[in-house]
Amino acid sequence: MWIYEKKLEYPVRVNTTNPTLAAMIIEQFGGADGELSAAIRYLTQRWTMPTGKAKAILTDVGTEELAHWEMVGTLVYKLTKDATIDQIKGTPFEAHYVNHGKALFPHDAAGVPWTAAYIQSKGDPISDLHENMAAEQKARSTYEWLINISDDPGVIDTLRFLREREVVHYQRFGEALCLVQEHNCRKKFY
Amino acid sequence: MWIYEKKLEYPVRVNTTNPTLAAMIIEQFGGADGELSAAIRYLTQRWTMPTGKAKAILTDVGTEELAHWEMVGTLVYKLTKDATIDQIKGTPFEAHYVNHGKALFPHDAAGVPWTAAYIQSKGDPISDLHENMAAEQKARSTYEWLINISDDPGVIDTLRFLREREVVHYQRFGEALCLVQEHNCRKKFY
Amino acid sequence: MWIYEKKLEYPVRVNTTNPTLAAMIIEQFGGADGELSAAIRYLTQRWTMPTGKAKAILTDVGTEELAHWEMVGTLVYKLTKDATIDQIKGTPFEAHYVNHGKALFPHDAAGVPWTAAYIQSKGDPISDLHENMAAEQKARSTYEWLINISDDPGVIDTLRFLREREVVHYQRFGEALCLVQEHNCRKKFY
Amino acid sequence: MWIYEKKLEYPVRVNTTNPTLAAMIIEQFGGADGELSAAIRYLTQRWTMPTGKAKAILTDVGTEELAHWEMVGTLVYKLTKDATIDQIKGTPFEAHYVNHGKALFPHDAAGVPWTAAYIQSKGDPISDLHENMAAEQKARSTYEWLINISDDPGVIDTLRFLREREVVHYQRFGEALCLVQEHNCRKKFY
Amino acid sequence: MWIYEKKLEYPVRVNTTNPTLAAMIIEQFGGADGELSAAIRYLTQRWTMPTGKAKAILTDVGTEELAHWEMVGTLVYKLTKDATIDQIKGTPFEAHYVNHGKALFPHDAAGVPWTAAYIQSKGDPISDLHENMAAEQKARSTYEWLINISDDPGVIDTLRFLREREVVHYQRFGEALCLVQEHNCRKKFY
Amino acid sequence: MWIYEKKLEYPVRVNTTNPTLAAMIIEQFGGADGELSAAIRYLTQRWTMPTGKAKAILTDVGTEELAHWEMVGTLVYKLTKDATIDQIKGTPFEAHYVNHGKALFPHDAAGVPWTAAYIQSKGDPISDLHENMAAEQKARSTYEWLINISDDPGVIDTLRFLREREVVHYQRFGEALCLVQEHNCRKKFY
Repeated sequence: MWIYEKKLEYPVRVNTTNPTLAAMIIEQFGGADGELSAAIRYLTQRWTMPTGKAKAILTDVGTEELAHWEMVGTLVYKLTKDATIDQIKGTPFEAHYVNHGKALFPHDAAGVPWTAAYIQSKGDPISDLHENMAAEQKARSTYEWLINISDDPGVIDTLRFLREREVVHYQRFGEALCLVQEHNCRKKFY
Repeated sequence: MWIYEKKLEYPVRVNTTNPTLAAMIIEQFGGADGELSAAIRYLTQRWTMPTGKAKAILTDVGTEELAHWEMVGTLVYKLTKDATIDQIKGTPFEAHYVNHGKALFPHDAAGVPWTAAYIQSKGDPISDLHENMAAEQKARSTYEWLINISDDPGVIDTLRFLREREVVHYQRFGEALCLVQEHNCRKKFY
Repeated sequence: MWIYEKKLEYPVRVNTTNPTLAAMIIEQFGGADGELSAAIRYLTQRWTMPTGKAKAILTDVGTEELAHWEMVGTLVYKLTKDATIDQIKGTPFEAHYVNHGKALFPHDAAGVPWTAAYIQSKGDPISDLHENMAAEQKARSTYEWLINISDDPGVIDTLRFLREREVVHYQRFGEALCLVQEHNCRKKFY
Repeated sequence: MWIYEKKLEYPVRVNTTNPTLAAMIIEQFGGADGELSAAIRYLTQRWTMPTGKAKAILTDVGTEELAHWEMVGTLVYKLTKDATIDQIKGTPFEAHYVNHGKALFPHDAAGVPWTAAYIQSKGDPISDLHENMAAEQKARSTYEWLINISDDPGVIDTLRFLREREVVHYQRFGEALCLVQEHNCRKKFY
Repeated sequence: MWIYEKKLEYPVRVNTTNPTLAAMIIEQFGGADGELSAAIRYLTQRWTMPTGKAKAILTDVGTEELAHWEMVGTLVYKLTKDATIDQIKGTPFEAHYVNHGKALFPHDAAGVPWTAAYIQSKGDPISDLHENMAAEQKARSTYEWLINISDDPGVIDTLRFLREREVVHYQRFGEALCLVQEHNCRKKFY
Repeated sequence: MWIYEKKLEYPVRVNTTNPTLAAMIIEQFGGADGELSAAIRYLTQRWTMPTGKAKAILTDVGTEELAHWEMVGTLVYKLTKDATIDQIKGTPFEAHYVNHGKALFPHDAAGVPWTAAYIQSKGDPISDLHENMAAEQKARSTYEWLINISDDPGVIDTLRFLREREVVHYQRFGEALCLVQEHNCRKKFY
């Protein structure tokens, strides 16, 4: 019941009905650098991490990304749940609608289904932590592009919150890289 | 910390080192009817379910499938973690090894990365619950094929446990279908 | 010459030129739950069905879906064949046009090429018939979403005819499931 | 009932049980240049062909390829239907078995699901007929590679028959190209 | 430094800011019959060509296609680099923007990532050269569809130049086919 | 003629005929972290890099990766060109052979065709350079796994050379990141 209850707690505010914006934000639900990519990537890499602490960081962040995945899904759903057919027709959400109605689906803004080809797990902790640091930077970029095209204040607030978390995760993976490399690291990443 | 702690509790027993068997069991980690498909499918469909009870069933089962996904990952990992290069060479695990070392990765037994094209979410509860009942039957079949080719007693025990859970999930989705259809249902499914 | 002649007989009526609508209806030509998925799925599963009657149902329905695939193709073609470049520009059909001109292609409304990952064939008749019953429900849903966004009377008539056939197929697969399970079944499905 | 009855007529002879060979021959059931690619490609291109004769050739050949698809499926099925688990284990068919049992599935010899990305339909008859001539040459090559690795006399006979048909289809598409270009053509292709 | 310097020499003229047109022209950067498909296809086939001359033709044309790939990228970039967010919103480029900003990416006009499933390399020179002749015809068709929907004079000029090169490449592959077949050929292809 | 001539210069030594090893090394020809991924990634990101120097580094490294792609192709080809059918049968190369003969093809060791989903280009130089540093670490890992399973001395030498280049590229991307961030950087990466 963990995920379900957490859903009720997060303040995902949406002020408008906007299928076009929903069709763009779904990028972070099922796109290359979205929350699903992050969650599956980190939870998959855990078995070959060399220390319990590194495993714990991957578990923590991976689990948090699952909750963020749910937040993004709620954004998309709230932007479309009250949309009339006339509000959907002629928007980029229409192609989603004829396949999935108003349900969520893990595809990107272009409608391409999520694929594990977006992520990697090499069995080498140096490589995997670099993969993760890059993933967080890429997710940050997507949130910035999404904020740029958003005009719903509640949506923008939520996207900013999620972007900030990616920066924090980036730093945690940087620290994990230091721990794994067992040498001095610079204090700040990015 | 939920997923991490649960990992410690499950009795995933593995008696042998067997990269070939690992390469087959990874089917349920990242294949069409594996645990990842199940988890993502159910957790994705929740927003458009018509009742709180239906949402709760999807959340419960989806969350349980995430834990099962982790169990399957542990099976694969334990079957390979002590394997020497000589034990890996010439097996179907070798193609996995040159890409992922001994790490997990969500692909099927043939090495095809997981794709959301395996799952569906239609925004119509009748369709989605049929999708889920079919998913559980298909997962049951995969476990049966895997049990047939397994000769490690611990692995077989774990696979049998996982197969039984699919039958239970199938029945729960049948009950959810009754609830959504609001009419008399036959008592037992399959 | 079977398919070619059948094409002439079906009353696929289209009253308008409407590239946007064509770009949506192509969902059933090459999308996840479209007619191609149905035909390939049923024709593929035949070899491992346990009785001649089950094989015959799969052959009958699979063959009918091929004819329906052709009907959907004709809908798409008639909606676009007289479209001028100005009528195409700025519509979701434009991305199709620059790749395929006015030809058909088996992709969904978002332009994603058809993949066999949409279908399954497990070699277990219980699983396969559940897969098929789910497939028919999902196809029914897609037709409902398509009818909702259509405003061409001939197109709507054809889509309604095709939707009804999915319900009939669903019932036939339910009957096949009864036959395969060799026990009493409830009379009506859905 | 068309496809079903035709199945009974073709003399698809198989003398051995050989899961490894089956795993290779499935290339022509669901691989890039297999019979499914051919059938879907030709049947998809029909709407934009400029003459009734060109449409008829595509319909004829596309329909014949569907029948050949069924023949290839029968080859694969006969090579595996009596295989014991011990005969399957350790062969490349094992990865297929854990997902699909002994059922057919449209994937290639490596297990990659069929995708419409293998085919093209450009809405330009010159391009489409070149696509088709290339397709027939590529299918011929695959049959030659398959014949090279086959040692079951019945299988080899059937593969040779199918290879010859590709050469004939190549010539028919060459003739169609002549008709469409409306100028003198050389008599023989390849 | 080869590719970089060549970029400076080509007169890729673009007169307007037009994200919609950019979203269509990206078809030739990462679509089925685009310049990347051509380059990777020809450069991949070289090892099994039977003569040094055939290898040289594949190398020459493949290398030229890499330069054309860069030209197409420059077209897309110039059409979008000065676009404001308001000019991007509501266009088909918006889905690209939220994933890639104003960067290039090898996907088609619908946003589907490039896949090697678009190309083939059979190890049989007759098949491979037919594949290539078909590829050039298909690329020519795409350029024609793109020219039809373009209204920027500089873009149209560049697209016409690129189309002409495909016709020349088609003829060169026809000549290579003659050389490989070692018999008389007709002088002109298409 | 650039690529063709370079091919002649590189000392790609192969001492054995070994189709199994070829089937593994093709991972770096068409796999997730192979040379094709690297080349297309870097050459694609160039347009949005903020300085001429950053563009030049991407061009230099991307071009070098194309040459390395060719070296890997030559390794695969030399390991298989003299193989008899008997040497191919029963190896993981057999599935490649029935589709591509002895030609190269950009797929990974499992036979999955290369997809642009493996790479990213975000239009944000910080993100893109992190992507590239991760890419180099992942390529290094693959070369290490490949070296572990190789027993041909010439192949191992070439793989070691290629691995070293990835480390150098990693450092160059680290320097580019410093330049783009315009602040003090630590001297050494990894």
